[in-house]
Amino acid sequence: MRPIIDTVEVRIVGEGDRIQLVHGDGGEATRELIEGFFLPRIGSEELRVAGDAVRPGEETDLWMTTDSFVVSPLQFPGGDIGGLAVNGTVNDLAVAGARPRWFSAGFILEEGLPLEVLGTVLDSMGRAARIAGVRVVAADTKVVERGAADGIYINTTGVGTTLRGIDLGPHRVRPGDAVVVTGPVGDHGVAIMAGRAGISFETEVTSDCAPLWPLTGRILEGLGGGVHFMRDPTRGGLATVLGELARAAGCRVTVEEARIPGRPGVRGAAEMLGLDPLYLACEGQAVIVVESARAERVLEIIRSGDGPWDPAIIGRVEEGPVGVSLTTELGGTRPLGPLRGDPLPRIC
Amino acid sequence: MRPIIDTVEVRIVGEGDRIQLVHGDGGEATRELIEGFFLPRIGSEELRVAGDAVRPGEETDLWMTTDSFVVSPLQFPGGDIGGLAVNGTVNDLAVAGARPRWFSAGFILEEGLPLEVLGTVLDSMGRAARIAGVRVVAADTKVVERGAADGIYINTTGVGTTLRGIDLGPHRVRPGDAVVVTGPVGDHGVAIMAGRAGISFETEVTSDCAPLWPLTGRILEGLGGGVHFMRDPTRGGLATVLGELARAAGCRVTVEEARIPGRPGVRGAAEMLGLDPLYLACEGQAVIVVESARAERVLEIIRSGDGPWDPAIIGRVEEGPVGVSLTTELGGTRPLGPLRGDPLPRIC
Repeated sequence: MRPIIDTVEVRIVGEGDRIQLVHGDGGEATRELIEGFFLPRIGSEELRVAGDAVRPGEETDLWMTTDSFVVSPLQFPGGDIGGLAVNGTVNDLAVAGARPRWFSAGFILEEGLPLEVLGTVLDSMGRAARIAGVRVVAADTKVVERGAADGIYINTTGVGTTLRGIDLGPHRVRPGDAVVVTGPVGDHGVAIMAGRAGISFETEVTSDCAPLWPLTGRILEGLGGGVHFMRDPTRGGLATVLGELARAAGCRVTVEEARIPGRPGVRGAAEMLGLDPLYLACEGQAVIVVESARAERVLEIIRSGDGPWDPAIIGRVEEGPVGVSLTTELGGTRPLGPLRGDPLPRIC
Repeated sequence: MRPIIDTVEVRIVGEGDRIQLVHGDGGEATRELIEGFFLPRIGSEELRVAGDAVRPGEETDLWMTTDSFVVSPLQFPGGDIGGLAVNGTVNDLAVAGARPRWFSAGFILEEGLPLEVLGTVLDSMGRAARIAGVRVVAADTKVVERGAADGIYINTTGVGTTLRGIDLGPHRVRPGDAVVVTGPVGDHGVAIMAGRAGISFETEVTSDCAPLWPLTGRILEGLGGGVHFMRDPTRGGLATVLGELARAAGCRVTVEEARIPGRPGVRGAAEMLGLDPLYLACEGQAVIVVESARAERVLEIIRSGDGPWDPAIIGRVEEGPVGVSLTTELGGTRPLGPLRGDPLPRIC
């Protein structure tokens, strides 16, 4: 939920002053809700800063992040809400340059939920936690009446510890830096939307749900200060992360469409569903901004990892008007603006 | 959700192997669900140990706890879900002997929620955080369709830091120790159930929702090692905390009904609703087990605090068969068993 602050005018997206689905899609309306409504009331210095994980207080070497998972359906091609709830929070810490350590898990269960489904989800959580090397140390379970939830909602909050000497963030991004993405974009979003619509495609489309730890740890070990910024493109997708980066770093980001990895099956499915993969959630990918001379080394490290990855240098950081510019496969350029339009609710 | 482990036979409370409301009431069914279903799949050493807050790893001085809040109605006499979500997590840390520091907040909002209600809830959260001296450093917001939640659900996860030299827990409880309760029991539970039933009573019944920090810090400073155990009686109430204490410490706890503080209005309302205040949630009280010679000093410290308190020594720890024994106002004795019977869903 934690967008980079901008000077955009704050206005709650209207219709009788009620929460709408668009407030949850991770785009502009989410940002307006948070800046106009949440920050003035429960804001702290940490909440006002960019990034999905925060370092609470200079006196600690801790990082902390939280995410609630409301994905529908609970089980989808390539994963389920349990694995997603662990990996999503692992990844927020991993891209902050922190080692994920201790997790809490809060469950809201709907009356009537088959225990078999709960068991499968918990099995996935346990497996994902073991793979990422985190421990669930605190948990809570609430049950609500039939119709007051939709099966299972899970909150995970993760605490991680800082890697020594690592400083990541938009403040370190410089013109000339290379923009790397770890692998194909949009897989998770398309898998969920296809699963929900009950559509199956010739090519199987599965979520890329996977942990970015220990991958980011290996990248930071290998390149140290050469890595300037990392972020996982979840709600709002690659385009949203690039837009937030451009605003926060006060620079221009140019990317080439032809270089952005994407599975043909996912592109085709997205097209049929009327969706743009550049705005769809990934759940196992990262955008990494790195000194351009070290970018090839980052690709090597990613390729040696065991995950849904197929990395590419997709563009670079430039001086110039703040924003994101896409060079299309036909050679034209177009701005890659913020997500606007139909919300995609409950993607994670 | 984190009960003390016992040797009770694990059996999921039946009816077609589905989640039922009784799994969420904090009593035996909750315990069976957690021990039979959650711990084998996502359990860690910390999750298996008693207590609402845990210390993740010996190498840190951190404590961590999580709670999801699904209380219905969102606003009730004496508070709302926002204040409850902060104080509930503050209190879990406070009774562990930790100073509450950094909080995360995860929101699940239902489409159609009036922004005015959200604003009031966030105001309460901000106020409660300031009073307890905690900062919300990470947050997340999800929106679900109308009918897939009930207004607002909030998860808070709190990280605290250990007070030096403090060791609390059932392992420190000794025969002869005094059992203290900070104030009247059952207020929160009755306020919620009355609010939900739309009943108003001659005497106003309000929730005791309040932070136990810095109170517990002052008690621990004042008595140091003389305090052996603290716990806040939320779901399942005073009787459940005493039962868990007796089992975990392997001792007998005897309490005198006449000494247990209770507001007459709450007792009367509970009786009309067919509820026993000893099993109803408090949200601003603690059970404190202390060396009997120091018990009066604890009462003095509590009385000097600013909260919904009116402390009393209600009983003591004895050798003898494990369990809780209540001396009634008529002079008889009866066992105070675990919560069984109609669940009280969404009390917190």
